[in-house]
Amino acid sequence: MSLLVVGSVAFDSVKTPFGVADDVLGGSATYFSTAASYFTDVMLVAVVGEDFPEKHISFLKNRKIDVTGLQRSAGSTFRWKGEYGYDLNEAHTLETHLNVFESFKPQVPEQYKNPDVVFLANIDPVLQREVLHQIKRPDIVACDTMNFWISGKKDELIKTLAEVDILLINEGEARELAGEPNLVKAARVVQSMGPSTLIVKRGEYGALMFGSDGIFSAPAYPLESVFDPTGAGDSFAGGFMGYLDNVKNFDGASLRQAIIFGSVMASFNVEDFSLNRMKSLDYKEIESRYREFRTLTFFDDIG
Amino acid sequence: MSLLVVGSVAFDSVKTPFGVADDVLGGSATYFSTAASYFTDVMLVAVVGEDFPEKHISFLKNRKIDVTGLQRSAGSTFRWKGEYGYDLNEAHTLETHLNVFESFKPQVPEQYKNPDVVFLANIDPVLQREVLHQIKRPDIVACDTMNFWISGKKDELIKTLAEVDILLINEGEARELAGEPNLVKAARVVQSMGPSTLIVKRGEYGALMFGSDGIFSAPAYPLESVFDPTGAGDSFAGGFMGYLDNVKNFDGASLRQAIIFGSVMASFNVEDFSLNRMKSLDYKEIESRYREFRTLTFFDDIG
Repeated sequence: MSLLVVGSVAFDSVKTPFGVADDVLGGSATYFSTAASYFTDVMLVAVVGEDFPEKHISFLKNRKIDVTGLQRSAGSTFRWKGEYGYDLNEAHTLETHLNVFESFKPQVPEQYKNPDVVFLANIDPVLQREVLHQIKRPDIVACDTMNFWISGKKDELIKTLAEVDILLINEGEARELAGEPNLVKAARVVQSMGPSTLIVKRGEYGALMFGSDGIFSAPAYPLESVFDPTGAGDSFAGGFMGYLDNVKNFDGASLRQAIIFGSVMASFNVEDFSLNRMKSLDYKEIESRYREFRTLTFFDDIG
Repeated sequence: MSLLVVGSVAFDSVKTPFGVADDVLGGSATYFSTAASYFTDVMLVAVVGEDFPEKHISFLKNRKIDVTGLQRSAGSTFRWKGEYGYDLNEAHTLETHLNVFESFKPQVPEQYKNPDVVFLANIDPVLQREVLHQIKRPDIVACDTMNFWISGKKDELIKTLAEVDILLINEGEARELAGEPNLVKAARVVQSMGPSTLIVKRGEYGALMFGSDGIFSAPAYPLESVFDPTGAGDSFAGGFMGYLDNVKNFDGASLRQAIIFGSVMASFNVEDFSLNRMKSLDYKEIESRYREFRTLTFFDDIG
């Protein structure tokens, strides 16, 4: 089993109604890798600047994440600043400094070139494709994207989607990509672009999966304290892909279980700033919350 | 088994992105009774004006709804006019003419005074209590309310809630009633007001139930065409209470099944304007959709 991810490693400054965190470890590939590392071996492709401290690299290595593909370039690490109101579903971006990410050219190391599954986190769709073209075709390719690429580079995004098995995006982005307000119809449009499976992330409302197995609806875990939603989507993707790579089974039943593991990892991640909650997480807690999702959704059949 | 409901019977004029309906049959008690009539015997308490046509009364009677408690007063029937945008979750009220509803004094007929379960639809909390005080204490009392009463008659509402077992309200209203943005904490505040069970209606995101049995999350049925969301909440309540009255079992497992039957009835109701879809509905279709909810939410346990 081996899982390759390409995405961002960043410093985040985040303000929520519950507190403030400045210049903490963030980035899509960071959240993804850390969540996935509870299930499988992760190979990371990303870029950081000269200011990226050794302690963060040690953290990733301690999670047994392979950082051979983490390039260090001249300049500063990608920085994002945002805030959330009481409606924690939506981030308001205050500042984005791409820095070394602006000229990022993903280089896949030789020992990464035969992965079982691949996750292309939310980066330029041209770069997503460049990663795919450097490796042997894996069992499953999943990707994320955002409104910025849907409106700004739609043609390139569509070329990438043609090579993708699973697309994970937010609800509004699914509607925008399909040009269709009804989600069930939108899913069919997106599936016609390439991905046989579409996973729609709905924040505190959970996730919907549209696949060959029909539709699967998963709730979010009802939490008493959501501290910081940053990274929830990438932690979700990490739990989802990490589990799939671990079981090496991609049938409908496994995809459904993977969605729940993704939801579990997202629910832990939002309990604290940055990756703080995942840092102290134990696999027994993950299994225990998985079972709580069963209790949360179970109802009897009719006679 | 017998289910008493008090609420509104109205004429609705509705515009959605998919069409227009003028002066069609509506009202909370109408939607509720019709949905519940697939499961149990319903006794209706409401008021209409002189303009209310016999054909609508015949429709209710054909559904075996007892209309002894449907008063006819001098004046016009309650009229509501509203519209929905592509975000079908929220109605924009254009006109409200209370008409005979303004001076409505619910009179519970003698033969209604020993019901097993009672639903107090969204009316003035003072009137909700007056209904309760005319009858023998039933097994279960459930009620609905809205922001208008939460902000305008909070003290009266709180008195009513003290006599209620189950409260069904929208998500925003639950937060407003509790004065607490986090839904899990808000539920605890609402439960301390009286209702041991809180059901939070989330439109296309389904429903959450907070009860002695823990939290239960039910999805909404993913529909390709939602024509008109009017009455979805009352159809939900009708399926929910109708099923409970039918099985006469109010344990956690039954409440969960009732939530799914409520979700089934709401999902049918929004497929057409007014009560048109429920008019042509067959109980086999209800059972079949119940099983689709099982398929929609099922996932395997971990080994």
